[in-house]
Amino acid sequence: VTAGLAPIRTAALLATGEELVRGAVVDTNSAWLARKLRPLGVEVVEVRVVGDGLAPIRDAAVELAARVGLVVVGGGIGPTEDDRTREALANAAGVELVVDAEAQRQVAAFFARLGRTPSPSNARQASLPRGATVVENPVGSAPGFSVAIGRATVVALPGVPSEFRAMVESALLPWVAARRSEPVETRFLQVVGLPESVVGERIGRWMTAPPPPLVSMTVEFGVVHVCASDRGDAAGRARLDRCAAELRTALGDHLFSDRDETLAQLLVRELARRGQTVAVAESCTGGLVSAAFTDVPGSSDVLLEGCVVYTEAAKRRTLGVTEESLARHGAVSEVVARELAENVRRRTGATFGLSTTGVAGPSGGTAATPVGTVHLAVASERATVHVARRLPGDRDSVRRFAVVALLDLLRREMR
Amino acid sequence: VTAGLAPIRTAALLATGEELVRGAVVDTNSAWLARKLRPLGVEVVEVRVVGDGLAPIRDAAVELAARVGLVVVGGGIGPTEDDRTREALANAAGVELVVDAEAQRQVAAFFARLGRTPSPSNARQASLPRGATVVENPVGSAPGFSVAIGRATVVALPGVPSEFRAMVESALLPWVAARRSEPVETRFLQVVGLPESVVGERIGRWMTAPPPPLVSMTVEFGVVHVCASDRGDAAGRARLDRCAAELRTALGDHLFSDRDETLAQLLVRELARRGQTVAVAESCTGGLVSAAFTDVPGSSDVLLEGCVVYTEAAKRRTLGVTEESLARHGAVSEVVARELAENVRRRTGATFGLSTTGVAGPSGGTAATPVGTVHLAVASERATVHVARRLPGDRDSVRRFAVVALLDLLRREMR
Repeated sequence: VTAGLAPIRTAALLATGEELVRGAVVDTNSAWLARKLRPLGVEVVEVRVVGDGLAPIRDAAVELAARVGLVVVGGGIGPTEDDRTREALANAAGVELVVDAEAQRQVAAFFARLGRTPSPSNARQASLPRGATVVENPVGSAPGFSVAIGRATVVALPGVPSEFRAMVESALLPWVAARRSEPVETRFLQVVGLPESVVGERIGRWMTAPPPPLVSMTVEFGVVHVCASDRGDAAGRARLDRCAAELRTALGDHLFSDRDETLAQLLVRELARRGQTVAVAESCTGGLVSAAFTDVPGSSDVLLEGCVVYTEAAKRRTLGVTEESLARHGAVSEVVARELAENVRRRTGATFGLSTTGVAGPSGGTAATPVGTVHLAVASERATVHVARRLPGDRDSVRRFAVVALLDLLRREMR
Repeated sequence: VTAGLAPIRTAALLATGEELVRGAVVDTNSAWLARKLRPLGVEVVEVRVVGDGLAPIRDAAVELAARVGLVVVGGGIGPTEDDRTREALANAAGVELVVDAEAQRQVAAFFARLGRTPSPSNARQASLPRGATVVENPVGSAPGFSVAIGRATVVALPGVPSEFRAMVESALLPWVAARRSEPVETRFLQVVGLPESVVGERIGRWMTAPPPPLVSMTVEFGVVHVCASDRGDAAGRARLDRCAAELRTALGDHLFSDRDETLAQLLVRELARRGQTVAVAESCTGGLVSAAFTDVPGSSDVLLEGCVVYTEAAKRRTLGVTEESLARHGAVSEVVARELAENVRRRTGATFGLSTTGVAGPSGGTAATPVGTVHLAVASERATVHVARRLPGDRDSVRRFAVVALLDLLRREMR
């Protein structure tokens, strides 16, 4: 990425590709990048998604470059005919496309590492706007590049999330950080188990007051993220401390973390620190609780075993749930949730046994046990705790809410 | 949604919320909606994401409404102070906000169903632009609405994906379909096991030729979706049939479906039809294979059991992997993958036993078994098949690619 002098304060993100604008693929890069840029004092003011035509990319790049200091373009630098970001940005910068020797070397090196030969179309990937600086791609075949358009720096990266993210971490963020003159301080407060409307009422005065500090709130399947930011000087930090202390009081024990981390990350870290372990027996969540733990690097020290016991036969065979419990109370019941949690704990020797059983829908609901009903349990040496919840939304939503509610139950048991 | 006469041909999507523009939450609604609108002949030409300020929402709505027939706004109609879409669209339409009796009734009915009392801030949700039509929210507390801005119809829906989607399905799509005069025909071809660049070379001539048919390609963790669309008349269908036949030949047995479905949906449908079952033993994927199956309604007839055996002790205890195999070949090896698949099949009596073992990273790689190495196996009565793959990207990427590669291995065994 080319170096410059003035700090970057505003950025816009341009995601390109028919697959995005037509909806076959979800743009997850922009949101992730916006989150990474904010602690560096860069405010993302707009995200645009356009197709992969040359003109829409060129026009959006020119328009956004006139408005912000940094435009990050994701996508359209792959090997195929419909990858037109290189050409569009060359047009926008008013320069021609030339074969870049360094880009050529990087494409060749990528295929050599995998023991493969580049396909002829991969050669396209080494043509960059004249004057562009190559950004190495440590993960895939497409090199990125940066080019000046007007007073803005425009950085083009691959759309594939793993490549986009690797290159942002290795090249873009260090470059932005190096240009930053004025530090920004951020506080995160993560809240679980309160509806958005209630969190809004408890902390509303900070969100409607004119900044600084700038306080924003976001919600995702039962977790509310509150983010407060201010200048990194003594006055800014003092304002943030005051604000954070007030928010902490308002949110009480629903606050689970003051870091930018997921509930599963917090639990894995804390369990590992204590030398404790978990084992999971899942019915309605069908693997998502185990997946939430194993998504965290280092979870192999913590998750002893996960059992997806979707059928009654599996509940009996693997976890010794009794036929009597199933017949008398039904698979979706407090009794079965408790047996699952206790038996998976006993079977594996884990510190905590966790379980879910419920009706995720769309079918399977009854008057007594409607779709959205879930029973969750956490068993430990001390006791087995249970909660029943009625969760909103479709199958996916019920399953995701159930994962968060179960992790929160474990968090409360660990206190 | 208000009725009108002319068919809708173009649409723009406006996702609002600081959480989106700042990246705390990913906008998945826009992509999903674009995908639903396309078979109805509506082309999404732009997606914009702005913060939750009144002016950015109002300005974007006015600008987009001047350009397309339908603007769908997602977000900003919740109960809190920072939900400003109602006010922004009233300003954009040049009308005032008024309490809507029907919206009020729907908010009250929602809370009654859950046996809760609306919080005072929920009352905000019944204030709509004068002249707006309420869109019922079958899932959550926030009613949607539609309002005319210039010649465009602007529809405001909640940002929460389960609510957004439920309301699009129940209200928006039927309304768009009713206005459509000219049918559109779509063919889907879904491809697994070929890199994007190779698919692009094989079908490139259809993608670069001027439409119709309009052929586009999208890629997501090892699956390439090809979508071809044309007019729904005899000539259009004939062109599509010719195109699809040629693409089928070019893509061969990498083609897994001609519906808009996931690989897991295809497998659950086909296994259920045959009365066959699967059981899963997962190491590196840590629950994601089970979660992919259980994400599909009806999978309880198909998935007998899933075992997340992340640790060596779990592999031995639950699936009888021998200490000798682990010591001699390592947990990430063909031998262990085969033992896991065969033993989970034997243990559960499933038709197919599936397994994964690998190094998802970021740590745990060695020179002999670098990060990204995965061994996958499928055991059946007939034989156990195995593939070793070296998968690209970060932990998340390796895990997702591994799920798709394993499902593809099962698909090939089922032929």
